[in-house]
Amino acid sequence: MTYCLGIITRAGLVMASDSRTNAGYDQVNVCRKMHIFERPGERVFVVLSSGSLSLSQSIITLLRRDFDNGAGLATAETMYDAARVIGDQVRHVSDMDRAALEKDDYRFNVHLIVGGQIQGQPHDLYLVYPQGNPLCASEDSPFLQTGETKYGRPILVRGIRYHDTPLEEAAKYALISIDSTMRSNVTVGPPIDVVLYRAGELEVRRRRRLTENDPDLQAVHRQWELALRKAVLELGPIDFDTFGQKAP
Amino acid sequence: MTYCLGIITRAGLVMASDSRTNAGYDQVNVCRKMHIFERPGERVFVVLSSGSLSLSQSIITLLRRDFDNGAGLATAETMYDAARVIGDQVRHVSDMDRAALEKDDYRFNVHLIVGGQIQGQPHDLYLVYPQGNPLCASEDSPFLQTGETKYGRPILVRGIRYHDTPLEEAAKYALISIDSTMRSNVTVGPPIDVVLYRAGELEVRRRRRLTENDPDLQAVHRQWELALRKAVLELGPIDFDTFGQKAP
Repeated sequence: MTYCLGIITRAGLVMASDSRTNAGYDQVNVCRKMHIFERPGERVFVVLSSGSLSLSQSIITLLRRDFDNGAGLATAETMYDAARVIGDQVRHVSDMDRAALEKDDYRFNVHLIVGGQIQGQPHDLYLVYPQGNPLCASEDSPFLQTGETKYGRPILVRGIRYHDTPLEEAAKYALISIDSTMRSNVTVGPPIDVVLYRAGELEVRRRRRLTENDPDLQAVHRQWELALRKAVLELGPIDFDTFGQKAP
Repeated sequence: MTYCLGIITRAGLVMASDSRTNAGYDQVNVCRKMHIFERPGERVFVVLSSGSLSLSQSIITLLRRDFDNGAGLATAETMYDAARVIGDQVRHVSDMDRAALEKDDYRFNVHLIVGGQIQGQPHDLYLVYPQGNPLCASEDSPFLQTGETKYGRPILVRGIRYHDTPLEEAAKYALISIDSTMRSNVTVGPPIDVVLYRAGELEVRRRRRLTENDPDLQAVHRQWELALRKAVLELGPIDFDTFGQKAP
């Protein structure tokens, strides 16, 4: 499994991913799922990949080759075009591998999230499906997730507001969301890669890789649990002594 | 979908369930999923049902018939026996309905949670699978969930401690867990039925049915969101200005 998360606010983007991959229960590895394509001052894309590792590696390899040759993501004029470039590469790999996979009952399973900005264009955030079609985040739905999405969703729903949430605060929500997921699904695990991108920077200036023993990650884990328990204690009392509607 | 939750602590039990049932997306109804079997002073069982409504209705109907006739749950000597009585009824209904369902590609899908106490025995909490076999909660895993379990799990993992959590506090965790689930899955919905059972009471004394507009439920929803956002603000700063390990 995997957990990848992109958050967009008026101020910028937070991109975060775990690093655990597994083939079955007895083959667990560490693998970076965050890939950066950057021409400082001109364009920057942070791509998060989830699903079959073989497929996402092929897609990233082909995207990187084109990018380094001045094609593909290097020439996309808008973030929508960039998402389409990624979707085209998904379809290319699908053409190469899908039939062989399905013959042995494997699904063609790969999802990508791309956040970034091109000079003169607004920063933006997209999800690319295994079929290659893109979905855009919005002011009402200012985050996109792939992989094990459910455990880490309630905190984002309650906390992230496109117009109001500062970038550093959005990063804390991202870490809490990932920490919540890691506690419930052992196939999601550290190191956690996080990028904070402020709109207009056009390069990655703030990035962290938080290992299992990173004091900041441990502090989030510990402080958050204490804060939650305190918050529950401070909730007003709920009256259970008045009998409600009688059950049959 | 459904969300049912049983919590056991040294002090007693919290049993909670939502009330939404749906057949497809366009047939949504309200249905109580909490069923109480009670001989005050002697025994009490709170049964939560999830899965196919037809199947859980059959199981509850047959359990109720036996109980009213002084058999089944009325004669179980331990909570383990009570879970086995429920499992036997699951298998009975499976014998009647499973083949016909599977012929039309429906799964035999029903999960039950039972919490309660029999005079002279400790209070206890079990989950009964569609195959009829029981699973017991434990001091290390002091809650059991069925249905849409993921959204509401992180708060329980962080909060519920068998030896320490007071019953009224466990009830707040249950409401927050259900509220988190309702926000992310529209097939989980109010009214919410909640029972607080203190070990030794041997009858249901504290029960609430919280409708959508119940001021206590709305207060939990509102206060919790405020408390979470405050807690995130109060988390220590995370240093993103030091560059971490360089990504490829």
